[in-house]
Amino acid sequence: MNVIINGRRRHFRTVTFDRECNSVILIDQRRLPHEFVLAATRDYLETARAISEMWVRGAPAIAATAAYGLAQGALSFRRGSLRLFQSHVQKVQDAIQSARPTAVDPANAMAFVRSAMASGQTVAEQQALAIAAAEEFANASVEQCRAIGRHGMKLIRSGMRILTHCNAGWLACVDIGTATAPIYAAHADGRQFHVFCDETRPRLQGASLTAWELRQQGIPHNIIADSAAGHLMQRGEIDLVIVGSDRTLGRTGEVANKIGTYTLAVLAHRHRIPFYVALPLSTLDWTLKSGAQIPIEERSADEVLVATGRLLARRKNGGWKPEKQIIMGQVRIANPGSTARNPAFDVTPPELVTGLITPAGIFKPTELWKNRSQLMGKAQGIASAGCALH
Amino acid sequence: MNVIINGRRRHFRTVTFDRECNSVILIDQRRLPHEFVLAATRDYLETARAISEMWVRGAPAIAATAAYGLAQGALSFRRGSLRLFQSHVQKVQDAIQSARPTAVDPANAMAFVRSAMASGQTVAEQQALAIAAAEEFANASVEQCRAIGRHGMKLIRSGMRILTHCNAGWLACVDIGTATAPIYAAHADGRQFHVFCDETRPRLQGASLTAWELRQQGIPHNIIADSAAGHLMQRGEIDLVIVGSDRTLGRTGEVANKIGTYTLAVLAHRHRIPFYVALPLSTLDWTLKSGAQIPIEERSADEVLVATGRLLARRKNGGWKPEKQIIMGQVRIANPGSTARNPAFDVTPPELVTGLITPAGIFKPTELWKNRSQLMGKAQGIASAGCALH
Repeated sequence: MNVIINGRRRHFRTVTFDRECNSVILIDQRRLPHEFVLAATRDYLETARAISEMWVRGAPAIAATAAYGLAQGALSFRRGSLRLFQSHVQKVQDAIQSARPTAVDPANAMAFVRSAMASGQTVAEQQALAIAAAEEFANASVEQCRAIGRHGMKLIRSGMRILTHCNAGWLACVDIGTATAPIYAAHADGRQFHVFCDETRPRLQGASLTAWELRQQGIPHNIIADSAAGHLMQRGEIDLVIVGSDRTLGRTGEVANKIGTYTLAVLAHRHRIPFYVALPLSTLDWTLKSGAQIPIEERSADEVLVATGRLLARRKNGGWKPEKQIIMGQVRIANPGSTARNPAFDVTPPELVTGLITPAGIFKPTELWKNRSQLMGKAQGIASAGCALH
Repeated sequence: MNVIINGRRRHFRTVTFDRECNSVILIDQRRLPHEFVLAATRDYLETARAISEMWVRGAPAIAATAAYGLAQGALSFRRGSLRLFQSHVQKVQDAIQSARPTAVDPANAMAFVRSAMASGQTVAEQQALAIAAAEEFANASVEQCRAIGRHGMKLIRSGMRILTHCNAGWLACVDIGTATAPIYAAHADGRQFHVFCDETRPRLQGASLTAWELRQQGIPHNIIADSAAGHLMQRGEIDLVIVGSDRTLGRTGEVANKIGTYTLAVLAHRHRIPFYVALPLSTLDWTLKSGAQIPIEERSADEVLVATGRLLARRKNGGWKPEKQIIMGQVRIANPGSTARNPAFDVTPPELVTGLITPAGIFKPTELWKNRSQLMGKAQGIASAGCALH
């Protein structure tokens, strides 16, 4: 999507590859929304570090980073037998996988690249196949988001006020995003509407990343405290809700997503506001039989107790002394002796979900299971070019 | 309530009066939860400043501060005729009223004191009546909270998990608080339970003030992001919700309170969790015919975009450099180019409210109107020793 640089909009992907320098090029998301910085990783080890230190986040984005990182590692092999090359590639794959050991998306992405390499007879052929497969993987990921946009934009009319939660945007994917895909497609079509971004406590992905994205595209928006959504719905100021999904159960239609999603769904249901979930096919889970089986990660209490952002000022002599440099600061916002509970996700039951916007079309949550062969088949073709978001 | 000082619990009121020094003594709430500091105002002008600069907040607390401030101003009159004295007292009243010009509670509190002074024949008599009336006002305010506690504690059993929102605690009153009153009464009775404090974005009164209060009393609690409440209810981890109220309509039973209250009520209703509102009688509004008539204050966007707290660390050379001094910092948590909507209150309809805990007993929202003569009569006796919270 676009980024405003010196007053002009330029197109970027979240992650790309520079063949000349053999570098993975990433938007350094640790610096957003305060600074836009591209990082070029020197070698696959640094690419692994970019994943582990969260220069890049969002499952599809780290999946593409892993695919490119594997190709980068393969291309760095200078001379030696095919056997030596293959043992080198295995070392690369292990290093990247260990960057976020429990994540399934980088594993699937690298498996896709390695399987494409297998038909090469020489080191050079396998190297060429590796980078081609990584590009194919990234492009397929973008194509899924584009298809979500094509289907989802039908829901958006000019004048609407749309609410979204967290960041299921292009920063979490290679481009376009999932929950943002219908928004960007409708905007490109010239429709005029307003977006409310839930700030999404505790990590504030809505206030920082989604708001940043929307501003770069020139889409009118406001940030709101998560607890203001109910009031706005009650006053008739929200027409449509679109959120992303980390995991949707194919058998039941239950949706696991960022904490607060369930609350929005309950509120939207009470006010008869359409509530849609955008998801890539790779996030469909066909095995679990109930949402109660989905493990809910309990994250560090410090995410609730401490706020991080650009340091604006320090209290001094009864006034505020402004900080002029761009420097990040952490402040304790909660009572020092108290601790917090911090469940990171929640599960929304299917009766609260109006529809699921997938690359294969819009489905009712209860229609997934009977369409499973179509959906599974489509998902297989693109490996895990998916969009499970963190 | 109690405050832990050097490991021991000592009792304090939020606001008291020191006759010897002719000072109003306040807990400086700007320093909480990071430091506990008592401030003694030198004269009525400084008391007015304490109100305008929010050393003290919460309508009952500023009402008592205004009553004491008026007495403080009256007592500072040294010599002169009764006529000169009365013009001096009017000047004092005007100065204190202008500290928060739209607040009705300081005005009512000072009217109560002045009406008590009227029967005095001399300056000295009127001075004595002023301070006696200010004390009576503060004590009546505490008595209302105590009565809320007596009625509300019947709802609390050992083992319960209670959710509260914002700070309707003793810091907002003279002592005990409103939503916290049943909690403190049940705790004093030896019942053991757990409290979840909604952090209450954007101003975080739950994370900072309510959590501080509960910790001082030794009551087990956790802070949660506002958007985690729905998930906890869904998982069966909340048994009771108690919140405060800024204004409750006597005709309809609608409850205006801090933004996010309506959302909690909707969620509690879905999960059949009892949802109670604690309120002093002075917050009952017998005139408005519909909650839609309640003006909803839209506050500064900066409350959403910027977080204030104790500065813990600054980013330096890729790491975090800790800040050792107790110094407050402000950080921009949102995208710099984006703005926010910030409605400060919302309105909860009566069908979502299980009961209203008042000093006169617990009522269904729809029972207010038929009991209006009883409730209005009780309210009149204590002027506005009320608890509309900010």
